[in-house]
Amino acid sequence: MSDRGRVAFVGAGPGDPELITLRGLRRLRAADVVIHDRLIPRELLDETRPDADVIDVGKTPGRPCAGQEAINRLIVERATAGKRVVRLKGGDPSIFARLAEELAAVRAAGIPFEIVPGVTAATAATARGGVSLTERGAASMVVLAAGASHAGGGVPPLDWELLARIDGTLVFYMPVRSVASIAARLTAFGRDPGEPAILVERLGMDGERFVSATLGDVGRAARRGGIVPPAILLVGATLGTASVPPRLRQALALMRG
Amino acid sequence: MSDRGRVAFVGAGPGDPELITLRGLRRLRAADVVIHDRLIPRELLDETRPDADVIDVGKTPGRPCAGQEAINRLIVERATAGKRVVRLKGGDPSIFARLAEELAAVRAAGIPFEIVPGVTAATAATARGGVSLTERGAASMVVLAAGASHAGGGVPPLDWELLARIDGTLVFYMPVRSVASIAARLTAFGRDPGEPAILVERLGMDGERFVSATLGDVGRAARRGGIVPPAILLVGATLGTASVPPRLRQALALMRG
Repeated sequence: MSDRGRVAFVGAGPGDPELITLRGLRRLRAADVVIHDRLIPRELLDETRPDADVIDVGKTPGRPCAGQEAINRLIVERATAGKRVVRLKGGDPSIFARLAEELAAVRAAGIPFEIVPGVTAATAATARGGVSLTERGAASMVVLAAGASHAGGGVPPLDWELLARIDGTLVFYMPVRSVASIAARLTAFGRDPGEPAILVERLGMDGERFVSATLGDVGRAARRGGIVPPAILLVGATLGTASVPPRLRQALALMRG
Repeated sequence: MSDRGRVAFVGAGPGDPELITLRGLRRLRAADVVIHDRLIPRELLDETRPDADVIDVGKTPGRPCAGQEAINRLIVERATAGKRVVRLKGGDPSIFARLAEELAAVRAAGIPFEIVPGVTAATAATARGGVSLTERGAASMVVLAAGASHAGGGVPPLDWELLARIDGTLVFYMPVRSVASIAARLTAFGRDPGEPAILVERLGMDGERFVSATLGDVGRAARRGGIVPPAILLVGATLGTASVPPRLRQALALMRG
């Protein structure tokens, strides 16, 4: 193996291409090989070198992740061949991005690696809505939870009694088609149906839609609006003052109509 | 009020100046007034305009936050005077950064604002250690919790029974001098003392120190190493393979000696 071969796992940030970090962009511009997910800001690919090998290994949500082993092999093969590999992931690589599996493969092969963190969808969503995830006296905790089961779609096997009791903000990543089921489980275990909820489809991307609702009616709002992946669901007292960003008012009006 | 007056709440990222986003840096470079916390990468202040008014409103951790009202007033005054104000916060503005209070003041004054999210310390810490916050089958949830009480220092008033039961990774922000107390409460409520734990002092900054331990011994490691604020504590099964970044081995050796 050449001394030069290495891997940088880079967080591309959540949809908006200006939310990548300076270091992430620097690594992307220097890469020999870029292996990217489906949900990365496409504009970032214009920043790669003209001779870079850019490989889309995007998986369709809701389908089994049969390709993970192949992705691991691809990363290891290219780095072992002496290439500077950037593994570009949407949001932050450390949060629901299957980083652990790819790290294990890279470690096992003895390849030097680096992780460049990114902005995760939870904080990008509250930033868009003009609210905070935490608040003194109102939310001393934030829970980031997988919104779908590993098998692809369906309600994740989480401890719903415990989640209902969390005195803080709950964030569900990629609640594929389970928004109504998640809301129903939380209220069944005693969480207030009047608690504010935010649902964002295509966060930071073209066609972004922002739904401001309550826990009790967010499932219906998702159905009525025909919200599809990718999306993120947030529930919590601090979200009550969330206002729909001006350029998205039309989308919301359509959904409520 | 001039039409031009507005506020951008910008996440500076966690210590390392290259972890700010492209948009964050753009806002910083264009600002008339920069109002910043103590814990921001100082190199970023070199990016401000020569004629920009740069104001340090840093609070010392562990002391009452008497200055919050004054900070709110300062932001509103400068924006009302027609200035482009950047309120620069360490990490992400939405996570334990008192954003809600400042937003309320800005909203009440009718000032246009924007939030530019940033990389939060939790994912920067796992990135430094070469591990993931989540893992299929090992951690379907991440909890971000305040590591100290609002009053400044001391153990935060959290539901420790609930936190001990969380099947995932726990992150405590700014556990000022309460690392041992947090660990003791979690194990008292049944959390495994053998669970991996990471403690990082001055994450991403000069003098960074990285401690890889277990929940059972992280309190003693913090005391022995003389770990002081700012620091972050992480507990979880996915952290077991965390390796100390090479340039920090010496610091760790000193702490264990």
